[in-house]
Amino acid sequence: MLLSFQLQMESRMIKTDIIIIGAGPTGLFTVFEAGLLKLNCHLIDALPQPGGQCSEIYPKKPIYDIPGFPEVLAGDLVKNLMEQIKPFSPGFTLGERAETLDAQEDGSFIVTTSKGTKHKAPVVVIAGGLGSFEPRKPPIPVIGNYEDKGVAYIIRDPEVYRDKNVVIAGGGDSALDWSIYLADIAKEVSLIHRRKDFRGALDSVDKVEELSKIGKINLITEAEVVDLKGEDHLEAVVIRHKDQVSDEEVKPTDHFIPLFGLSPKLGPIGDWGLEIEKNAIKVDNAYDYQTNIPGVYAIGDVNTYPGKLKLILCGFHEAAIMCQSAYQRIFPDKKYVMKYTTVSGISGFDGSRKEAKREVVKSIN
Amino acid sequence: MLLSFQLQMESRMIKTDIIIIGAGPTGLFTVFEAGLLKLNCHLIDALPQPGGQCSEIYPKKPIYDIPGFPEVLAGDLVKNLMEQIKPFSPGFTLGERAETLDAQEDGSFIVTTSKGTKHKAPVVVIAGGLGSFEPRKPPIPVIGNYEDKGVAYIIRDPEVYRDKNVVIAGGGDSALDWSIYLADIAKEVSLIHRRKDFRGALDSVDKVEELSKIGKINLITEAEVVDLKGEDHLEAVVIRHKDQVSDEEVKPTDHFIPLFGLSPKLGPIGDWGLEIEKNAIKVDNAYDYQTNIPGVYAIGDVNTYPGKLKLILCGFHEAAIMCQSAYQRIFPDKKYVMKYTTVSGISGFDGSRKEAKREVVKSIN
Ligand SMILES: Cc1cc2nc3c(=O)[nH]c(=O)nc-3n(C[C@H](O)[C@H](O)[C@H](O)COP(=O)(O)OP(=O)(O)OC[C@H]3O[C@@H](n4cnc5c(N)ncnc54)[C@H](O)[C@@H]3O)c2cc1C
Ligand SMILES: Cc1cc2nc3c(=O)[nH]c(=O)nc-3n(C[C@H](O)[C@H](O)[C@H](O)COP(=O)(O)OP(=O)(O)OC[C@H]3O[C@@H](n4cnc5c(N)ncnc54)[C@H](O)[C@@H]3O)c2cc1C
Repeated sequence: MLLSFQLQMESRMIKTDIIIIGAGPTGLFTVFEAGLLKLNCHLIDALPQPGGQCSEIYPKKPIYDIPGFPEVLAGDLVKNLMEQIKPFSPGFTLGERAETLDAQEDGSFIVTTSKGTKHKAPVVVIAGGLGSFEPRKPPIPVIGNYEDKGVAYIIRDPEVYRDKNVVIAGGGDSALDWSIYLADIAKEVSLIHRRKDFRGALDSVDKVEELSKIGKINLITEAEVVDLKGEDHLEAVVIRHKDQVSDEEVKPTDHFIPLFGLSPKLGPIGDWGLEIEKNAIKVDNAYDYQTNIPGVYAIGDVNTYPGKLKLILCGFHEAAIMCQSAYQRIFPDKKYVMKYTTVSGISGFDGSRKEAKREVVKSIN
Repeated sequence: MLLSFQLQMESRMIKTDIIIIGAGPTGLFTVFEAGLLKLNCHLIDALPQPGGQCSEIYPKKPIYDIPGFPEVLAGDLVKNLMEQIKPFSPGFTLGERAETLDAQEDGSFIVTTSKGTKHKAPVVVIAGGLGSFEPRKPPIPVIGNYEDKGVAYIIRDPEVYRDKNVVIAGGGDSALDWSIYLADIAKEVSLIHRRKDFRGALDSVDKVEELSKIGKINLITEAEVVDLKGEDHLEAVVIRHKDQVSDEEVKPTDHFIPLFGLSPKLGPIGDWGLEIEKNAIKVDNAYDYQTNIPGVYAIGDVNTYPGKLKLILCGFHEAAIMCQSAYQRIFPDKKYVMKYTTVSGISGFDGSRKEAKREVVKSIN
């Protein structure tokens, strides 16, 4: 009984060469550079999708300073990177936050997530960007009591709201887009915003206005949710209107979804014994972007060193250099000779091989 | 008279913020990073076209490790970089080798080329790659006497060979491609190669074979040019055939073009008082890729530091970091606050502006 339980625990352990915490552009490109060295990678990200800030904050905005792209949408850059690393079949643990880092006696590390998933590898790379994104919460004292009991800060599965009464709060793109989306699914959608001004894509603002006019969205502006009611589960929100502060409105609802954006927090990584400076991890940029814990590297936005620039292109370089050092750590006796992809191609762990075209040698006569 | 001469000299001086020696991928991207900081650049390259190794050695080969490009032809990468830097209208001095670097009393530098063109700037960046490319010459003792008198190692203007007798030597892509090209222009084209095996694109080899069969190319394999004849100008080449070593053939010709490839040499840069290690320039990679001469930086393949990787993506990062330091040097009192291109767009010196889309703020009601 105990043995079978242990086996079960054991089988939940994901083993790889490099654990990458953070699947932003830096973490993704690390898979490629590691792959060229025939090192396997597993990525952990608190968000449900890869791409980090590019996917979560500005997927539809163009970036102008990725070398070789006069202009590229952040979302397309992520798509390209996913395509580029495909031959190396990385593993993903998504929607789980890395909580603890435990050094093992054999020199390896175990990283455990918020859901208890364990990962083991000789090398850990923190590519955690600005940290894991935490939803900005409205200042309602009792809100903690209703989380997962009617209150949510991120919409993971819209079907949850089918034929339900939903109150959304916020004035940005998320609040606008989800109000439009849920208008067709929920029984009633109310959108509450403190101001009359909305800050989002013009067509979203127009669409909300239109849906409000035909009664598909119940638009409540210059108002705020200030309290929540309900026994075990949320039953109503208390709304305070700007022009009648004394007279609060109690509005029955099944769900309250404040969409005030996400703010990044270094979070648990801050407690792992790493040297922290300016909310970032200090690394040895003169050599290999290693932290004060040997075998643990930090690259991309999450690290700091003299002259550091928080740019995507810098994360790419740091990933390339860092992988060489990881290779040395994993294979201390092998000497790696760098080969150009143009000359040697790349080969995937699935056995696929993207061959560089060989020069043709042909006799005449 | 003297004054007007001085004025004339003065007017030949190109002035800019940053002189970039080497228009390879690293040098080109430097223009972009400098441009974001509103610094003007002028590029010098010994080759007649920008792109460095990518354009000169392997324009038609795919690279797999440029971040965000699962695959990109080297030539297309250069094209994209040229497009990306266009808004910043860099100057170019092409086909001239940077010969001397002279520090001025005011802290600036003058770089003079092989053709005497002078460039002045407070900052010099050496992005010279493996050095300037020098043609590999065949071991014919008298060959130096005939250079520019019938012997050439690079074909700059094919019209020079119209209705002339031309002997090309070599077994690679250049020899094959130029033989095909000149077959339509020259009176007679002979292609001489030591072996029967040619090393080049399959269709080029096939094409040469075909042109040889119909008598448009005079193909001479397993043979070598061992001597040259002529008074002031080349008049004949002496050919030794593998199977009849004693009996040399004297073949009258107007031009002899050995195309044995280019080999890179650090060249004059080696004499500028820079610290050199392993045929590369030592830089401070822990900070800003500056050399031992303050104000002179070295980035890309031309520099060395612990853990250096000669990769294109590394040159890009080095360029970004180096430009920040150059900005400090040029404007010691200004504090630059980095802005994301996504948020601020980029603006060119020609007054053009590539604007990042603004967020829309719109009232409802
Ligand atoms: C509006 C905007 C515009 C920008 N424009 C540009 C631009 O023009 N050019 C440019 O170069 N850069 C730009 N940036 C910055 C760029 O997005 C970042 O430099 C880049 O995303 C950093 O990549 P990264 O992979 O290091 O980190 P991130 O993209 O931040 O990704 C880090 C990932 O790690 C995850 N994570 C963190 N901690 C944990 C944990 N404990 N457990 C699990 N997962 C965790 C996070 O969820 C996140 O997904 C912009 C940023 C913003 C917000
Ligand atoms: C066949 C091959 C395949 C490759 N494959 C890859 C790959 O897959 N991935 C990768 O990242 N890299 C690859 N590389 C390497 C890549 O091409 C180099 O890293 C890159 O070109 C370096 O760029 P650079 O701008 O620093 O220097 P270069 O491209 O070498 O350009 C330097 C320029 O400086 C000029 N120059 C030098 N000295 C002087 C002077 N005194 N005066 C004037 N001009 C001067 C030269 O003429 C040259 O044009 C490959 C290289 C080769 C040859």
